[in-house]
This record gives sequence, structure tokens and C-alpha cells, in this order.
Amino acid sequence: MRARLGELAARLGGELIGDPAVEVARVGTLEAANAETITFLANPRYQAQLATSAAGCVIVGPAMRDAAAARGAAIVCADPYLAFAKLTQWWAAQTRVLPRPGVHAQAVVEEGARIAASASIGALAFVGADAVIGEGAVIGAQAHVGAGATVGAQTWLKPRSMLGEGCSIGARGIVHGGAVIGADGFGFAPAQNPQGAYWEKIEQLGAVRIGDDVEIGANTCIDRGALEDTVLEDGVKLDNLVQIGHNVRIGRHTAFAGCVGVAGSARIGAHCTAGGGAIILGHLEIVDHVHITAATVISRSIMKPGQYSGMFPFDDNASWERNAATLRQLYQMRERLRALEKKT
Amino acid sequence: MRARLGELAARLGGELIGDPAVEVARVGTLEAANAETITFLANPRYQAQLATSAAGCVIVGPAMRDAAAARGAAIVCADPYLAFAKLTQWWAAQTRVLPRPGVHAQAVVEEGARIAASASIGALAFVGADAVIGEGAVIGAQAHVGAGATVGAQTWLKPRSMLGEGCSIGARGIVHGGAVIGADGFGFAPAQNPQGAYWEKIEQLGAVRIGDDVEIGANTCIDRGALEDTVLEDGVKLDNLVQIGHNVRIGRHTAFAGCVGVAGSARIGAHCTAGGGAIILGHLEIVDHVHITAATVISRSIMKPGQYSGMFPFDDNASWERNAATLRQLYQMRERLRALEKKT
Amino acid sequence: MRARLGELAARLGGELIGDPAVEVARVGTLEAANAETITFLANPRYQAQLATSAAGCVIVGPAMRDAAAARGAAIVCADPYLAFAKLTQWWAAQTRVLPRPGVHAQAVVEEGARIAASASIGALAFVGADAVIGEGAVIGAQAHVGAGATVGAQTWLKPRSMLGEGCSIGARGIVHGGAVIGADGFGFAPAQNPQGAYWEKIEQLGAVRIGDDVEIGANTCIDRGALEDTVLEDGVKLDNLVQIGHNVRIGRHTAFAGCVGVAGSARIGAHCTAGGGAIILGHLEIVDHVHITAATVISRSIMKPGQYSGMFPFDDNASWERNAATLRQLYQMRERLRALEKKT
Repeated sequence: MRARLGELAARLGGELIGDPAVEVARVGTLEAANAETITFLANPRYQAQLATSAAGCVIVGPAMRDAAAARGAAIVCADPYLAFAKLTQWWAAQTRVLPRPGVHAQAVVEEGARIAASASIGALAFVGADAVIGEGAVIGAQAHVGAGATVGAQTWLKPRSMLGEGCSIGARGIVHGGAVIGADGFGFAPAQNPQGAYWEKIEQLGAVRIGDDVEIGANTCIDRGALEDTVLEDGVKLDNLVQIGHNVRIGRHTAFAGCVGVAGSARIGAHCTAGGGAIILGHLEIVDHVHITAATVISRSIMKPGQYSGMFPFDDNASWERNAATLRQLYQMRERLRALEKKT
Repeated sequence: MRARLGELAARLGGELIGDPAVEVARVGTLEAANAETITFLANPRYQAQLATSAAGCVIVGPAMRDAAAARGAAIVCADPYLAFAKLTQWWAAQTRVLPRPGVHAQAVVEEGARIAASASIGALAFVGADAVIGEGAVIGAQAHVGAGATVGAQTWLKPRSMLGEGCSIGARGIVHGGAVIGADGFGFAPAQNPQGAYWEKIEQLGAVRIGDDVEIGANTCIDRGALEDTVLEDGVKLDNLVQIGHNVRIGRHTAFAGCVGVAGSARIGAHCTAGGGAIILGHLEIVDHVHITAATVISRSIMKPGQYSGMFPFDDNASWERNAATLRQLYQMRERLRALEKKT
Repeated sequence: MRARLGELAARLGGELIGDPAVEVARVGTLEAANAETITFLANPRYQAQLATSAAGCVIVGPAMRDAAAARGAAIVCADPYLAFAKLTQWWAAQTRVLPRPGVHAQAVVEEGARIAASASIGALAFVGADAVIGEGAVIGAQAHVGAGATVGAQTWLKPRSMLGEGCSIGARGIVHGGAVIGADGFGFAPAQNPQGAYWEKIEQLGAVRIGDDVEIGANTCIDRGALEDTVLEDGVKLDNLVQIGHNVRIGRHTAFAGCVGVAGSARIGAHCTAGGGAIILGHLEIVDHVHITAATVISRSIMKPGQYSGMFPFDDNASWERNAATLRQLYQMRERLRALEKKT
């Protein structure tokens, strides 16, 4: 794979500084670039690397125009990070081998499944009865589509991913390996029998309904609803190992980093983000444009956009031990402080 | 699927207020109900929704009898949440298509495996040598039962779940997709070679032993023991993405929410609960009836029943930053407070 | 399986106290041992169990020589824990049935894959085009090796594990069930269209490169790099449900316990450890020999070896509530303390 700078600049809608006939052979970082690498500079904090980079071409914003031109070839774009994203998409489209349409001889497709002619069903994949697979959809090797489930056009269930019975995902989605969409929500009623207390299962009668342009990370779990459906709106992006409980609703274009957990029946707005390891408790509401710091626990509703945090600051172990032990006396300290204030 | 209120009331052992011949066609929430919906009210905090619900019938407790009757048909039960749980079970039993008994032509069953006549082995499932599958058990499509493993009667290994070599699960269990029972525990001895320090593997010679009526969530991991077995007693319920280390023992009817992690050799009592994201460190003991708040880290044994918590309270980011920075001086603050107290 | 103490002492390079002809039939714990059990004592805190153990033989260090000899047979080794590790390895090698070399009739191997003669490809496994499987490697039942991926000699991909397209793992590795190596990193550029803000995908053009002697736990995820590769050096050990973001680099012999999350582009040194549930944020550096306590969030670079902690201390719920509520006023308390100090 080789591409001329002239063609790339035209595709990205940027201004080329340099020879349009020069070719690059890979997309890389500023740091690891060589003369055949096209790279980008979006974050001003990496500007120092620009001058010393050996890259064949750098995509930059208007503010970096002169600094980039002083170094060598450049493509100047209004939003260099977005241009870089589009470059990676084009690059991938040129280099990736797409699975052939059709059903692999060693896939299992049950009766009543409707598979579009341009869809691809991989080796050892399973498509249950009455499932619907849209045009251009790809069901990867060893992936699983349950009975009655629906996969939208151009959506890609990567190898070893799973869309459970009766669940649906819209168009242009990506579900990574190991993701489980549509396992039972965690619902039990406390009960008693002569042997004592136990849990009686609440069968989960709902499903999972996912919009268009949604990406679901590896080994992420999205549970089916107890009665109504669990819903992810268009454009939602979930990283790996994320847990979405039953009856959660996530608004458009909200993005959660790895290891985030959302408990049942939380309603989360559009354009929100959560950093890695954040926990959102159940039966609460979060409005649009709320940003949650990594490892923060959201224990009640948030009705105002903004950034919310609650991470214990780390320290060397000895300092932490002293401070953590003192934390257990904090309320008492406040009372002592009050007493002192009264005295003086 | 349609059901008459008279029949439902009889099944649930409740008193019907209203016409027994009226039919409902779905189980739903108070909020989303229509005239063909049967729903329930168990938590008094949703009482306001009762009057305005369009539900065809509401299951309520004795205290809500009059309020429900004023609105329309109702079934009055001593424990409406438990009655609802049983209703979902009956509903699911009526509507779900059970897998046919027998071994799918594209499953792989190794030599010596004993499969009960009424058990079902799904497409692309694997059953290892000498495994034992009980009566009415279901091994879902693409699921995995290792050599010498045992699956009890009526237990359901959902598609893409895994019970490792030599591990066992009792009767009436459910294992959801992606769960891995019986991977190696994390055990290494520090060692030195001429190149420096490295980790020498401790082979994990134990297995996982799971009782009856246990439910294991999607992508949850339960490691095999190093020497003795990892044990989950009867009635344990684990949500998704839970990690259970080697040689952990979990007592009867204990339930853990999503993303809980339990380190090796922890011994946890019966009837305990842990909220989402809680971490329980290893080599400690927790007695019966201990309840751990979400995102709490249990770092030493708990010998007294009760509720235990340790979650950093979240705040708007600016307030959190100030407080978190100050937290690092907390011990010092206590010393300063003491000094002041001596002075005044 | 039975082994004579004389043979075991010779294999472990220890001094046998007792009759070399005596046989043991299992490796077990001090506590659960019987006369046919060989066990070990490495941690002095379990010394009390030594005197009462019914074990047929105990592996001990020189300091425990007399105490062990007073009880019965013993093997004295310089490092009893390491000796125990080696014993488990030998025991496993004697008792485990190794998969036969060759490709199972119900595996799928695509064109161009090169599989060493002594390698084993299990039932329902998938090996993509041009993948390379080394001598003695084992691809378990239902496991997945993507196109162009490389598996080193003697490496074991356990059933239902996955090594994605173009990724590589060295020799003598172990990848447990459900692990996903090579899913896309979580990379999106913020963008706008007439409907508003959305996320534009950054295609992940890198891969994952894993050294020799690496063990990856069940359901752990290691994302492929955006441009360069995500790298795990030799001897790294990751427990279950660990998340490694794109472009992370982990140094030799670093070990992470379960549920650890590492965000993108973090560079972690050699010989580090992290306890369960720790979170390491992205774009930071951690030097060699850093040890992170369980459930600690590392939010900035660590340039000095040592132990670092940041876990909220748990308490009974009522005490926690008081202290946590006060924590929100901590900065204010410091200001009040300062004011008092000025006054007195």
C-alpha cells in the first residue's frame, strides 16, 4: 500500500505543502515516523516532536502551518485530528481484506433466518431461527446471533461476539470479540422456604435495542431488560469490559471508557462521557453533557451538565496509610474543630 | 400469549379484584403499561404511578389494596415482588422455545462423555471426554464443557459459556454467555535466573465446585483452586464481569452485583451481598449476613454482620480537586488540630 | 498418580528427612492434608498448622527444618515456595493428558496458515489465513487465531481464547478462555455534522505484540494499537478481566491482578505489580519496580520505585457516611484550621 500526498490532501480536503507526487507507505506517530510515514500533530503538547520527526508528511492545523512547512511536507487541515481519523478509515479500507459475502460452509444457520445476499456469515458462526442479517453485515467467525435477533446493514459482529435472542443492533455498528449483548439482567426477589432465605429468579422478558453507528468493546456486557428493553441510542461508543445493567438507557453519542459499570435502570443522557472504571449506580438519572472522571462512583442523579469526580488521590504507601487512617476520624475532627472555634 | 386474570390470580395465590375473564398479553412496568399489560407495585416509592397507570391489572400488597382497587383490576398478594418474580417465570415458561433434547449434528462430543437422554447439546458446542451432562440440562450453541466436567440436571449453560476441565455445577443452574469457570488461578512464585527476577508458574491442580441453583453472569470468571477447589455453595448469584480468585469459598445464597472482584482464598459467608464494583481482598474472612456497598474495598476480615462502606463521595470537579488535594494533608491537619487543642 | 519422596526430593534439589520409599498421591494444603499428601510451608504465619498437619511430607525452608522433622517427613529446600511451584509443574506434567498433535477434523484452517507438525488445533477452533502456529503450540477447542497472527512454540491458547488478526505471541505463553487479544483500541475524533456532535472512528492500524513466557487471564482484553503496536514484554503475567488499552507498553515480568485497567498509551516498567481493581490512566509513565496497591488509581507518572496506594478505607456504614459527608468540607476545614492557627 502506497499513496501520493496529492491524493491524500484531496481526500482530506486539506492544503498540501510539498510535492504531490511524493508517496507514503504507512500511517504512524511523529516519534516513530520515517520518510515513508504520514503522521499528524493535533495536540500542541507534542509540538516539540514536530521539528525532529523524520515523517514524510505531517497533517497539521492552521496554527502549525509554518512550523510544519519549515520541516518538510505537510497537509494543513482545519481539524487535523479529524482529518487523521478519516485518513485511518481510508487507509483501512484500502488494506483490509473484507470477508466474502455468503454463508461459510461450517457456519450454522437455523431455519427461518433471513440473510441479505451481500452479508457474510463466518466459519463456525451461529445464526438462530428467524434472525435477520442486513445488507453488507458481517457475522465473524465463531460469532453468535440468537433466534429472532436483528443485525442492521453494514454492521460487523467481530469473531466471537454475541447478540442474544430477540435483541437488535442498527446499521454500521461494530461489536468486538467476547461482547455479550442480551444476557439476563440481574434480578431476584428475596424469598423464604423452610431452609431459610433464598433468591427467586425474575425472568428477564425484555431485550436489548441498539441504534445505528454504535461500537461495543471486547468482553463488554449489555443485559436484556426485565420487562422493557435496555436501550443504547445512535452513536454510543463503549470500550472493553463495560457492564450495562438491565433497563439502562444511554443517550446518543455518549462514550464510556473501559471497565465502566452502569447498574440497572440508570438513565443516561446524550453526549456524556465516563472515564475508565467509573461506576454509575442504578435507578438514577444523568442529564446530557455530563462528564464523569475515571474511577468515580456516581451514587445519585446529576441534573446539571459538567464534570464530576470522586477519585481517591494516590500517594506513596506510607503517606496514604497515615491519611487513610485519619480519614476514619474526619467527622470527629470536624467536631473538635467546631469546639475549638467556639472556644477562641 | 394471552392469560386470564382468574388463572393468574390462582397461580400466584392472590386475591383477584376484577373480572377473572379479562385477558392480558404482556408483563410490563406501571409506566409503560396498556390495557393488555399486567404489572406490579412493590416499592411504595412508585405509588404515585399507580393511579395513572393504564395497566390491565396490577399486583399489589395488602397495604395497596384499596388504592389499586380504586384504579381497576388488581391481584393482592402477601409479597407482590415475589409474586411478580413467579409470574415472570410462568410467563417465560409459556413463551420460550426450549431446545430439543439430543446432540446437534454440528456439536463435538468426545469419547466417554455421558449425556442424559433429555439433555440438549447445541450447535458447535464442545463436550470433552468423560464429561457428564445431567437430565434436562442444556448446553447452548458454542458452549464448552471440558473433559471430566459435570453439569447437573436442568442446568443451562447458555451459548458461548464455559465450564472447564474437571469442574462441576449442580442442578438448576444458569451460566451466561462468556462466563469462564475453571481458568487457572493467578499463582506464581518469585524466582531468579541469570537474567534476573521472574515468575515461576504454580500449576493450579484444583477445580471449581458449584452447588445447586447458582446463576453466573456473562463474562464472569471463577478460577480453579491451586490445590483444593474453589467453591460456590447452593443458591449463589453472581452478576456479569465478576472475578472470583482461586480457592475462594462463597456461602449459600450470597449475591454479588456486576464487576465485583474477590481475590484468592477469601472465605465469604452465607446470605451476603456486594454492590457493583466492590473489591474483596484475599486471605480474609467475611461472616454471614455482611452487606458491602458498591465500589467498597474490603481489606481485612469482617467478623460482624452489617453494612460496610468505603466509597469516595463524588462532587463537581472543582470541589473534588480542592478536597482531594487537602486529603493528602489530612494526617498533618490532625496533628495541627492537636497542637491547637493543647494550646487553647 | 503416586510419587516416592526420594524421587521428589531429588527433583526439587532438597534434603529429604524421612523414608525415601514412602509415597504420596496428591499435592495439598497443610490444613486439608492426609498421609498421602505432600504439602509445603512457606509463609511463617501458617507455622501453627505445621505441628497438627496430617501431611505425609512437608516442603519447608531451612529455618523450619527442626519443627518439620519433629512432625514427620520433610523436604528441606532453600526456597520452599519455589520448590512447591516446581512440584506443581512436575505433578501437572505427569497427570495431564496433552492434546494430540494435528488438526481436529472439525477445526477450520484457512488457506496459507502454516501449522507446525507438533502443534495441536482443537475442535471447532479457527485459524485464519496465513497464521503461523509454532512447534508444540496448542490451539484449544473453539479458540480463534486471526489471519496473519503468530503463535510461538509451546504456547497454549486455551479453549475459547482469541488472538486477533496480525497479532503475535511468543513462546511458552498461556492465554486463558475468553481473553481477547487484538480488538480495536478505543479511539474516536470528536466531529460535527448537521445533526450535531458525534464520534468519528479512528481505525486501529497497529497490532498487539507479546513476548515469551507471558500468561493472559480469562476474559482479559488487550487492544491493538492505533498506529504502533501495543506491547507486552517477556514474562508479563496478567490475571483475569484485565483491560489493556491501545499502545500501552508493559515491561518484563510485570504482573497485574484481576480487574486492573490500563488506559491507552501508558508506559509501564519492568518488575512492577498492581493489585486487583487498580486503574492506571493513560499517557503516563511508570518506572521499573513500582508496586500499586489494589483499587488504587494512578493518575500521573511515577518516576520513583516504591509502593503507591490510594484506597478509601472501608468502615461500618454509619461511620463511613459521617466521614464521607465531612470529606466534602475538607478544604473548608483546612481554611478554618488556618484561621484558628492565626488567631491563637
